[in-house]
Amino acid sequence: MAKNNETFVQHIASRSEDFPQWYTDVILKTDMVDYSDVKGCMVIKPYGYGVWELIQQQMDARFKATGVKNAYFPLFIPESLLLKEAEHVEGFAPEVAWVTQGGNEKLTERLAIRPTSETIIGSMYSRWIQSYRDLPVLMNQWCNVVRWEKSTRPFLRTSEFLWQEGHTAHETFDEAQEETMRMLEVYRDFAENVLAIPVITGRKSEKEKFAGAVATYTMEAMMQDGKALQMGTSHNLGDNFARGYEIQYLSRAGKLEYCFTTSWGTSTRMTGGVIMVHGDDRGLVLPPRVAPIQVVVLPIAMHKEGVLDKAKEILAQLLAAGIRAEMDDRDQSPGWKFNEWEMKGVPIRLEVGPKDIENKQVVIVRRDDLKKQFIPMENLPETLKAQLDDVHKGLFDKALAMRESKTVDARTFEELKAGVQTGFVRAAWCGERECEDEIKAATGASTRCMPLHDTGAALGDVCVHCGKPAKHVMYFAKAY
Amino acid sequence: MAKNNETFVQHIASRSEDFPQWYTDVILKTDMVDYSDVKGCMVIKPYGYGVWELIQQQMDARFKATGVKNAYFPLFIPESLLLKEAEHVEGFAPEVAWVTQGGNEKLTERLAIRPTSETIIGSMYSRWIQSYRDLPVLMNQWCNVVRWEKSTRPFLRTSEFLWQEGHTAHETFDEAQEETMRMLEVYRDFAENVLAIPVITGRKSEKEKFAGAVATYTMEAMMQDGKALQMGTSHNLGDNFARGYEIQYLSRAGKLEYCFTTSWGTSTRMTGGVIMVHGDDRGLVLPPRVAPIQVVVLPIAMHKEGVLDKAKEILAQLLAAGIRAEMDDRDQSPGWKFNEWEMKGVPIRLEVGPKDIENKQVVIVRRDDLKKQFIPMENLPETLKAQLDDVHKGLFDKALAMRESKTVDARTFEELKAGVQTGFVRAAWCGERECEDEIKAATGASTRCMPLHDTGAALGDVCVHCGKPAKHVMYFAKAY
Repeated sequence: MAKNNETFVQHIASRSEDFPQWYTDVILKTDMVDYSDVKGCMVIKPYGYGVWELIQQQMDARFKATGVKNAYFPLFIPESLLLKEAEHVEGFAPEVAWVTQGGNEKLTERLAIRPTSETIIGSMYSRWIQSYRDLPVLMNQWCNVVRWEKSTRPFLRTSEFLWQEGHTAHETFDEAQEETMRMLEVYRDFAENVLAIPVITGRKSEKEKFAGAVATYTMEAMMQDGKALQMGTSHNLGDNFARGYEIQYLSRAGKLEYCFTTSWGTSTRMTGGVIMVHGDDRGLVLPPRVAPIQVVVLPIAMHKEGVLDKAKEILAQLLAAGIRAEMDDRDQSPGWKFNEWEMKGVPIRLEVGPKDIENKQVVIVRRDDLKKQFIPMENLPETLKAQLDDVHKGLFDKALAMRESKTVDARTFEELKAGVQTGFVRAAWCGERECEDEIKAATGASTRCMPLHDTGAALGDVCVHCGKPAKHVMYFAKAY
Repeated sequence: MAKNNETFVQHIASRSEDFPQWYTDVILKTDMVDYSDVKGCMVIKPYGYGVWELIQQQMDARFKATGVKNAYFPLFIPESLLLKEAEHVEGFAPEVAWVTQGGNEKLTERLAIRPTSETIIGSMYSRWIQSYRDLPVLMNQWCNVVRWEKSTRPFLRTSEFLWQEGHTAHETFDEAQEETMRMLEVYRDFAENVLAIPVITGRKSEKEKFAGAVATYTMEAMMQDGKALQMGTSHNLGDNFARGYEIQYLSRAGKLEYCFTTSWGTSTRMTGGVIMVHGDDRGLVLPPRVAPIQVVVLPIAMHKEGVLDKAKEILAQLLAAGIRAEMDDRDQSPGWKFNEWEMKGVPIRLEVGPKDIENKQVVIVRRDDLKKQFIPMENLPETLKAQLDDVHKGLFDKALAMRESKTVDARTFEELKAGVQTGFVRAAWCGERECEDEIKAATGASTRCMPLHDTGAALGDVCVHCGKPAKHVMYFAKAY
């Protein structure tokens, strides 16, 4: 078996030797994704899409619990509409794909393919919102967006990707701020309790914020190669878009006022985070709550009488209990199957053979620790559910320990330079754009976020780079 | 109250006077949809999108039960790829939107926005499929597609719309045919048992079939204005696309063979069918299984002690039982609310006031018959579930009776001409394209489908138009 193992996994690069190659090997060999004939666009194969479906379901339920409803807005944005919010268009124009021809006619006005939908949604909100009675408006859409990227990697950065974008409108700035923070918290809760990824939540610098926002909040995760991944953002747009798109309402005082709006988004990129946080040299390690297959049932010596029947009976039990289970009764050796399902990151492998049936037990091997356990057949679904929860917890704890081992405090620029080679650096910072650019140029690291409860500085209280008085504690890292 | 009613519904045109205006009034006033700033593109508002979400969930479960898995393929199709299947490109080229510019660079090759994805999916299948062991491949995607349409109507025909497209590959023609029919049956079952719309299933003429298919099967429904609506199609593509995109496999006999493929799709268009089949002069009538709100709870005299509490308690009971319920405790008169929820087509309105509480009962009014019923509070969720099933059945039966009253047999061309003014005409037909074109020119009616168990002709056995020997029984109708 060990031998088989080695033969099988030799095709996956090791993380320590070549992390990017490991990532590519894993996503292709596990049938998560494939490259397509279209530059920069990926095909999400059923196994990868299965993860996305589970992300959608569980995130969507969280949105709805806060009163958000789904809607759908057009893919196309007329150029004139896109141009109305100056800062926004400046940020996105270099990335826009343009439709110039419809059927046999040349269009009189170019249509942008949405890179994000503040503009088209803003123009609709300006029609729908008349009075304070119409507020708040809380909508979300699940859709594809296009950003013309020069260099792409499946899930992490592609020209087309799938995402959700929430767009809300409120009476006051404070309510918009409250919504912005509420959705950031939904994201944090989702990342930690569904994806088993601990995140740092905080505010972006002026440079890194969303084009057109007053403030951008983010959740940042640490990957095993020491690079940060932005997993989701929530923007307080103030009245910037309301002014650009004339989203006005008659206030309680009978005055025409501009709304305050927010937007917030997460994407298929999260799948890349799941892979890079939890995966190991055998392949994927999927957190149970987004694993398309949570338990794979392997009949051992399946030609022996009663084995296949018992395996089917167990499968039916698990499915009935709401566990996502599958049976692998293909004509392959157990060793081959063990490797296959380990590579695919299935949280629990369940084996049942003639001896197990005799002993009224099954064998399980968890993907997170690869240890063999004998489990009584009685109350199997309950036992497995508890085990799945435990896998989740184990993965979260391990990811947290990994992140902590890759996070350092820096009081000098040398410490910062060294720290960003391997992970997050927490340091005091002056808050100035020029200093931020210099740090980036010298280290390759960008500002990731100021932690949520920023007390206005600490850690030495002078900027780690320029030595001026510090305004914030900032997380720095190289990032995807 | 009657007065209120009249005041309220006066803004909706009556179906008999102006059906197109009635349709427009209903979809706009019930917040199903809105026009956008983009020509031919609609915005699906939360109430309309809620119907689509329920369609997706229930159809997706049916797909998965047949072994189909979801995936996602790129929005863009390089022009050279689109051109590989000649008949297909001829059919779709006039409707394609083209991307010619990405960011600041002019593209060297134009990218089509998918009007349908046989071509891009075919190119991926040619990579993925090597041997008979890889077959069948059964995938589906939920996505947006774009067809540049000259004249558009929300839900029925828009430049961008949402749909699902299934794409499968098989070893033999017979297996592809079996899959084509299996999915047609999934569609029929869905239309009848979820949307409460009776459909006629059958095969399209050569003229009306999908560009590139060997045979197209369809489900056709009758609207209240006597026009047919194509609600979904399932295509046997033979080996046409496999040859165009080189989808080959090593057969059991060790020979390289072309696959046989199918595709099948339904779209947001179905929502238009739901509206036009079930709606009445008061507005929408939503079948319970796709109604975003199945029961609206109205507290009557809600300032009276205990009323609001009891209404909340009932709401919680219904939600816990899996009924999609909402409470309307807005500060409006009961009459206003009755009209509002009738217009929105909510299947059951539940009223609870002080007297009802005393009598341990509630009042319900079903949207399909508008009759008042007193229902004991005991076992309320069970009673309401049975009522919802009964509403479904009532709507289906009514729609079937409507369709039957609008379907006639024709043995002469005069009978056909008269019949297509008000609905379906069943007639014997020669099967020739020229004859089909002449009928269309003379009557405005197109061939809808040859019923599934076509016996090769009947009804006089000569063509209803040209008098040549008949080859099929054909349904003719004017259509959306």
